[in-house]
Amino acid sequence: MSVHGSRVANDVDRERTGHSTDTSPDGGEVPASRIIFCLNSGSSSLKFALYRVNRQEEILLAEGAVERIGLPTACLWIRTPQAKFEVEDKDLSLPSAALQEVFSELERLDLPPLEAIGHRLVHGGPSHSTPERITKALMDELRELVPFAPLHLPDEIAGIEAVTDRSASLPQVACFDTAFHRRMPELTQRFALPEALWEEGIRRYGFHGISYEYIMRTLGSRAPSRIIIAHLGNGGSMAAVKDGNPLDTTMGFTPAGGFMMGTRSGDLDPGIALYLLNERHFDGERLAKLVNHQSGLLGVSSMSSDMKTLLEQREKEPRAALAVEMFCYQLRKHIGALTAALGGLDLLVFTGGIGERAAPVRWEACHGLERIGIKLDARRNDTSADTISADDSPCIVRVIPTHESMMIARHAYHVIFAALREAC
Amino acid sequence: MSVHGSRVANDVDRERTGHSTDTSPDGGEVPASRIIFCLNSGSSSLKFALYRVNRQEEILLAEGAVERIGLPTACLWIRTPQAKFEVEDKDLSLPSAALQEVFSELERLDLPPLEAIGHRLVHGGPSHSTPERITKALMDELRELVPFAPLHLPDEIAGIEAVTDRSASLPQVACFDTAFHRRMPELTQRFALPEALWEEGIRRYGFHGISYEYIMRTLGSRAPSRIIIAHLGNGGSMAAVKDGNPLDTTMGFTPAGGFMMGTRSGDLDPGIALYLLNERHFDGERLAKLVNHQSGLLGVSSMSSDMKTLLEQREKEPRAALAVEMFCYQLRKHIGALTAALGGLDLLVFTGGIGERAAPVRWEACHGLERIGIKLDARRNDTSADTISADDSPCIVRVIPTHESMMIARHAYHVIFAALREAC
Repeated sequence: MSVHGSRVANDVDRERTGHSTDTSPDGGEVPASRIIFCLNSGSSSLKFALYRVNRQEEILLAEGAVERIGLPTACLWIRTPQAKFEVEDKDLSLPSAALQEVFSELERLDLPPLEAIGHRLVHGGPSHSTPERITKALMDELRELVPFAPLHLPDEIAGIEAVTDRSASLPQVACFDTAFHRRMPELTQRFALPEALWEEGIRRYGFHGISYEYIMRTLGSRAPSRIIIAHLGNGGSMAAVKDGNPLDTTMGFTPAGGFMMGTRSGDLDPGIALYLLNERHFDGERLAKLVNHQSGLLGVSSMSSDMKTLLEQREKEPRAALAVEMFCYQLRKHIGALTAALGGLDLLVFTGGIGERAAPVRWEACHGLERIGIKLDARRNDTSADTISADDSPCIVRVIPTHESMMIARHAYHVIFAALREAC
Repeated sequence: MSVHGSRVANDVDRERTGHSTDTSPDGGEVPASRIIFCLNSGSSSLKFALYRVNRQEEILLAEGAVERIGLPTACLWIRTPQAKFEVEDKDLSLPSAALQEVFSELERLDLPPLEAIGHRLVHGGPSHSTPERITKALMDELRELVPFAPLHLPDEIAGIEAVTDRSASLPQVACFDTAFHRRMPELTQRFALPEALWEEGIRRYGFHGISYEYIMRTLGSRAPSRIIIAHLGNGGSMAAVKDGNPLDTTMGFTPAGGFMMGTRSGDLDPGIALYLLNERHFDGERLAKLVNHQSGLLGVSSMSSDMKTLLEQREKEPRAALAVEMFCYQLRKHIGALTAALGGLDLLVFTGGIGERAAPVRWEACHGLERIGIKLDARRNDTSADTISADDSPCIVRVIPTHESMMIARHAYHVIFAALREAC
């Protein structure tokens, strides 16, 4: 019988569940596998995944999402290695209700009980540089960080609270999308703003850190000295990594910064905000809507924020073509900028939905970059091969699918169980 | 006797002044020289220069400035090829009064009468792509453009009006600092914002265009295919020029954009403005003051916006060192970005006060750019030689002093007199 949510394994009943300690053929203790539930909470969607994790690997048992929460078209789907199905007639009116439906649905499946939950949190502020076990003190800190990410943190905090309400004893871990970048030097974390704003936390936090961690872990000891990772999805950013250490990233204080994205503007001349405020009488709310939801690919194309749609339409729709061209041009410039920052480039990694699948975007983003050592192989790129650079390209270019939930599972495992074992 | 302001040469009395038409040794008409007064009007300063211009050259007759207008320490100085002197006991309480004092003072000197005035105007909006003779219709247009440059255009318009009040018949020419960039493709003039904002004029205008025109004119037919010009002064920007055509520039809609400057932040994550507005209750005025006057080198160093001061202090003041390091790092990234946009780089030109004189800034900005073909020669750089790249550097790096007032004089000459002559 599988037990979720209200009946979960904890330190006391771990022995009873019978899968906490395995014995190797030579009689020694090998890493136990643990069942970790990963949750990415948003206002209109929940994404989740269930992993069996041991010291060596993560095995995906199930994943799914609740989409369009609160709308009539809301849906909950789950995929296991055996099947994918949609669940009907559920209360998906609010994120909290939707999460309870997810737990109930998982209970019906023949899955082992949850032992820990890992949460993706968009923002950890200046002081959270690693995944952390969620405590009351951390929750208080997270609430104080809400002004840094008012669009995201409240839903994520609500997700943690919903889990706690269901099962207070289930250990939970916060994985911060900003944590990876906290090792950047002050040089790149600072904006050219007065020191007082730096002191109160207005810094380049960077995002997509969980994805960058995953890619760096995947590269492992094969990681060369100078790396750019381009995480391109609905949101997008790049990270520059030098000798294993984060050097710089394109996103800034919030996920609105960096280069243009699906609906976000990226960095802007601050004079544009001043013009809209002082001459056009925008208020903060309207400005937030503009730069977060009405700009980027959608704003330029007047059509769609979806790269696949724009690539299909660009032959006949000049505005779709312009949006794609601007996006690729901005990528090219950011690759050039980070290459200059790194003093050269050994490896460029594309990841994220666009990075993994949009071959024309990768091709056009790298067009003209031969001078900095990037030369793609057209056929490899067209098939999104693991390595898409030409054999004689000084810089290797790769496509590596990211798995943020797998990274969250790994982190949660380490924070809760690896530490416990080491303490024994 | 020299005649200024209220008694000026115009089309009718040009023959009387005796220098409008010269005769070459072989009896043919050669370009006449004209006396052009160049004016750069600000709220707290006026800069001016007087040139004798013919078709081939510009000869500087006098230059000067009124500084700190309205303050007790206000001063008016004038330099001629023979002498430099400060003028005392003048009414420098307002820009208009200060301008009249300048004209009065020039009348005392043994200088030929003014025949035209060229004005530097910070903003020409989307439709002004060349210098233009100032007419009532243009003045009306300029007043409509004030919302695009509320900090600068009102003073510049007042400067034109003050000249008109003194001498309505003196032809005046507007030289727009944005004009050079109007030949950029739509790709680079657009921000990733909704099309409606593009239509109403929220575009990448770019600035320092008069300086870029001067540099391109100086390079003449020796200009290679792929050029970056870095104009670095209190304000700063870069322009990328491909095959003689402007391709891109770092500054945007206003002079607050691009990379960090003396007191300006440069481009920012728009989420910072939203945080300050929504969480910290800034208003537009306070935000404008922050990004225009309290940021950049001054904001980071908490000390000075002046690069010379910071370079002198950086050994003992870590914050001065950080400000310089951030500035050079940002320059390096922008050189990398524009090199990627150009598909390589043949020539990098440094100009402007910092670009011409701050050898350590040039050195550090180019540090690590060998991979994109830039290799400086330390001794040449230290002496700010014309060419500062090493003999084996694939990309030539030069220091070329800019002369914006000379370019304005040239433009005014062409607009008023060359056109007249061609029409004869």
